[in-house]
Amino acid sequence: MTAQNPLLIPELRKLLASGNTEALQEFCSEGHPADIAELITALPGQEAWSLLSHIDLPLRAEIFSHLDDDLQVEMIDILRREEIVRMVGEMPHDERADLFKRLPEERREDLLPALAQAEREDIRRLTAHVDGTAGAVMTSDYATLSSEMTAALAIEHLREVAPDRETIYYAYVVDKDRKLLGFVSLKDLILARRNALVKAIMHRDVIFAHVEDDQEDAARKIQKYDLLALPVINGKDALVGIITHDDAMDIITQEHTEDMEKLMAISGRHEEAVYMKTPAWDHFKNRSPWVIMLAFLGLVSGFIVQSFEGLLSQFAILAAFMPMLADTGGNTGSQSATLVIRALALNEVSPRDIFKILGKELQVALMLGLLLSVIAFGRVVFFGGGSTGTDNFSLEAIGWAIALALGLQVVTSTLIGALLPMAAARIKLDPAVVASPALTTVVDMTGLLIYFTTVKLTLGI
Amino acid sequence: MTAQNPLLIPELRKLLASGNTEALQEFCSEGHPADIAELITALPGQEAWSLLSHIDLPLRAEIFSHLDDDLQVEMIDILRREEIVRMVGEMPHDERADLFKRLPEERREDLLPALAQAEREDIRRLTAHVDGTAGAVMTSDYATLSSEMTAALAIEHLREVAPDRETIYYAYVVDKDRKLLGFVSLKDLILARRNALVKAIMHRDVIFAHVEDDQEDAARKIQKYDLLALPVINGKDALVGIITHDDAMDIITQEHTEDMEKLMAISGRHEEAVYMKTPAWDHFKNRSPWVIMLAFLGLVSGFIVQSFEGLLSQFAILAAFMPMLADTGGNTGSQSATLVIRALALNEVSPRDIFKILGKELQVALMLGLLLSVIAFGRVVFFGGGSTGTDNFSLEAIGWAIALALGLQVVTSTLIGALLPMAAARIKLDPAVVASPALTTVVDMTGLLIYFTTVKLTLGI
Repeated sequence: MTAQNPLLIPELRKLLASGNTEALQEFCSEGHPADIAELITALPGQEAWSLLSHIDLPLRAEIFSHLDDDLQVEMIDILRREEIVRMVGEMPHDERADLFKRLPEERREDLLPALAQAEREDIRRLTAHVDGTAGAVMTSDYATLSSEMTAALAIEHLREVAPDRETIYYAYVVDKDRKLLGFVSLKDLILARRNALVKAIMHRDVIFAHVEDDQEDAARKIQKYDLLALPVINGKDALVGIITHDDAMDIITQEHTEDMEKLMAISGRHEEAVYMKTPAWDHFKNRSPWVIMLAFLGLVSGFIVQSFEGLLSQFAILAAFMPMLADTGGNTGSQSATLVIRALALNEVSPRDIFKILGKELQVALMLGLLLSVIAFGRVVFFGGGSTGTDNFSLEAIGWAIALALGLQVVTSTLIGALLPMAAARIKLDPAVVASPALTTVVDMTGLLIYFTTVKLTLGI
Repeated sequence: MTAQNPLLIPELRKLLASGNTEALQEFCSEGHPADIAELITALPGQEAWSLLSHIDLPLRAEIFSHLDDDLQVEMIDILRREEIVRMVGEMPHDERADLFKRLPEERREDLLPALAQAEREDIRRLTAHVDGTAGAVMTSDYATLSSEMTAALAIEHLREVAPDRETIYYAYVVDKDRKLLGFVSLKDLILARRNALVKAIMHRDVIFAHVEDDQEDAARKIQKYDLLALPVINGKDALVGIITHDDAMDIITQEHTEDMEKLMAISGRHEEAVYMKTPAWDHFKNRSPWVIMLAFLGLVSGFIVQSFEGLLSQFAILAAFMPMLADTGGNTGSQSATLVIRALALNEVSPRDIFKILGKELQVALMLGLLLSVIAFGRVVFFGGGSTGTDNFSLEAIGWAIALALGLQVVTSTLIGALLPMAAARIKLDPAVVASPALTTVVDMTGLLIYFTTVKLTLGI
């Protein structure tokens, strides 16, 4: 089955109209649940549910878990309470907790008492953590073993619990207080002698996260150590959940999206890709604060220009270089900021390396500045004739002044571009937040000041 | 063991000086190979190798595989041929192929004949694919099964081959021509009856990639379907490799770095994070082409300004609004471009949705444009007095003209921001390449034309 194949929708609707449960069940079990979920997304809520109701409970819960957040909430509104309760019992624990987090208060209050005590407790525990922490993304359906089991018994145990566990490839060894003692992989168990004890095989040096750790740090651990899952412990060193490799990948993708949006000064938090579904008004609310703030900063640049009005009316050619000056400053500053932000994000450099980084950026900036100065000088000398004011000074003199100003602008904006994210990281802010548009506006201001001052001083006016 | 704990280095060097193989072996097997590799990176090449030579071959190969690319190549230069050959035999197949790709030609020619025929062939096959394709990132050390095996025999087989396979949690069922028939997970095998046949348990609807598929598409499949590994087939439908979940995560991170760099107009391809190690001259070469190209485009903006010199000298206040106009156009354009690029990358929208997207962006742009126009109008009326030319027209009239121009600029730049990446995607270019700095420069030009023309027409001069 091809994902998102629109040709399958009419076929699906025909099957649905016929009410042939067996055919529907077969249709849905042939494809991957993620693909079936995509097909269902194209159907209206009531029809989508009627399709799901034809399918076996475990597969139904799996497909439902793959639906996007809004559709899940929409469908919960359609369903009867008993149906929800049955399905929720089959969902992965983290998906189930996420669903409850998104339900309206009264709906949640209505559903929770209908669940089994253990499920209710589990949801309460998983939803208790602050968004963005390891605790908020972990799941509680992991496998545990006792250290005194033999390998054969451990495999038998994993086999029994497999249907209800997110993964059985990693199992965690805990004591009676759920303190994490070690972990074994199913591969370890299969390679071991049948009567070897778990405590003899297990890895004691377990890599783990704390519930309150940042979700991205936890995901990066999974990436760095090539793990299938990362155990999460609470303040008492007790195992409370795991984060799986697929969730880690989603966290990293989500952080990427947020990084890019921060770079482009878009606020608002998305848990999933939602461009088309976000109403224009919400887009406006996400984007306008930064645009407005930066526009006000842009007005400051305007006042700087206004204060040099005399100089500008005397040398009209200066205005012609303002766009190039601003763009070049923004470009070189953004380049160094991006490289530094990325290096910080990948833990390649730390705020302590600031002088090494400034040293390297200075070298790059001097080369770029020299090159651009030559271009600007050429532009003035070859195409600058005829502008107001060019009669009183030689074109060469004006060219030198502008070239010098541009070179200085490149060097300062490159250094500011490297400095701002480092400073943000130092005071524990996200480096990405100070980048691109904010930076562009800042180097605009410094650039204009440098520009007019340099020209004034160089030409002696 | 804490990663990157600098306190461990003196301890390690002391152990190394004592030459106590047993203690060194214990030290290195206690930590995760990725952490040991980080510690070793802090040692000079010769000392690093002397440490590794104290360790068991399998662990040695594992730690070596975690070293960064440059250090691997550096160490290969130190080692004797027999030592390399022995270690290469133990490395994961994809890591081994990557290493050979990076070795200088003569070193490769020197080493290849010393390897076993099968290894040589394997390296030749894995290095034959174009960078950036699924073929170039896949590994060949996967497990296969025959469809006629029983579950018990299959588990026994996986157990035997486990030490040489990247994963045994997924096994692929192939026929005698290596054509991919299906796959089973170790969980499926463990849950099945002992004498159930593999062909009865296996999933026939396998999700796979072609060797020449883009590496990012392959990684996104692993992400979408929550896979541990994705099989890769060649033009004859034969299984030739797998891509594992950890490699998929690295691919996604790498693509993100490249996206961010494209957004900031930095060329050059990095396979790994290398900011500090990249010489300033290489940074210059990566960054200057775009900066220069954009500077030339900025000169075009300059010519536009120059052509309106008369207007500017008559109304000096117009120059004061140039920075705000340029910045605001750049900001709003970048915002819409970023959202569209991200939605395209996550397959949330396709180039066919262009009118829906333009419709949404138009709504957002009208709201943003209205808001910014009001701000600009207020700025002119309250702080614009006293500038040259403001005597001949009322401040209100000038304010209206500038506000209208700014509103038009916001709308056009937002639409251009959405349009350019869609157009790039349509002609199969990477959408990210047309974003931020290139876009900023384009909307600068359109913005200046809009600005001066609108003011001229509105004021009737």
